[in-house]
Amino acid sequence: MPGSTNCMNDMLPVRDALFVVGGKWKLMILISLSHGNTRFTQIEKSIPKISSKVLSKELKDLEENELIKRTVVEDYPVSIRYSLTDYAQTLGKVILELHTWGINHRKRIIGKNAVTADHV
Amino acid sequence: MPGSTNCMNDMLPVRDALFVVGGKWKLMILISLSHGNTRFTQIEKSIPKISSKVLSKELKDLEENELIKRTVVEDYPVSIRYSLTDYAQTLGKVILELHTWGINHRKRIIGKNAVTADHV
Repeated sequence: MPGSTNCMNDMLPVRDALFVVGGKWKLMILISLSHGNTRFTQIEKSIPKISSKVLSKELKDLEENELIKRTVVEDYPVSIRYSLTDYAQTLGKVILELHTWGINHRKRIIGKNAVTADHV
Repeated sequence: MPGSTNCMNDMLPVRDALFVVGGKWKLMILISLSHGNTRFTQIEKSIPKISSKVLSKELKDLEENELIKRTVVEDYPVSIRYSLTDYAQTLGKVILELHTWGINHRKRIIGKNAVTADHV
């Protein structure tokens, strides 16, 4: 836990961060883009259970926060590509720590529910 | 971003982590507890805009995931105290990275909207 003695000082930056990248989908989308998915349909396919409507809204939010860039490719037909901005790279450590914790958490759950591990 | 070449391998642990500690309130509650708030009303007061109903639900979820411990103190009247488990300490780095990112993000926003910085 952060070391500050002021509770609110510790909470507010975390709240700010969660406001921008919290929720179920935003980090999934950034990870998808980091794996080279650039088109809407590619991103949609890469994220289990996301709907077109939600993906569309989340991409817009991420673009507003300058975490992704939307580019119109003047081709026949015109196509839209999405890519990570340099600013999105600053989320690397956040994603890495969540990733590490998620792996350990799953191991812990499986350890406690060995019989039902297949269903985790 | 994590280094694996498999998109799903990168996404799933992050999704697992967000499932347990994502959302608006859970990390706020853990931070509040880390600052020595142990009673329901103390925790409620320390987190701006949380409702009793939501706090009650979130505390239950956190307890189920063994991140907090609920203790009944046999006093007059009986009182309930909440505390962090050792397992909750494993979230330290996640919280620290979100905290660091949140501070930088706010600086960035203020830098871009100098005139309206008071309203950020």
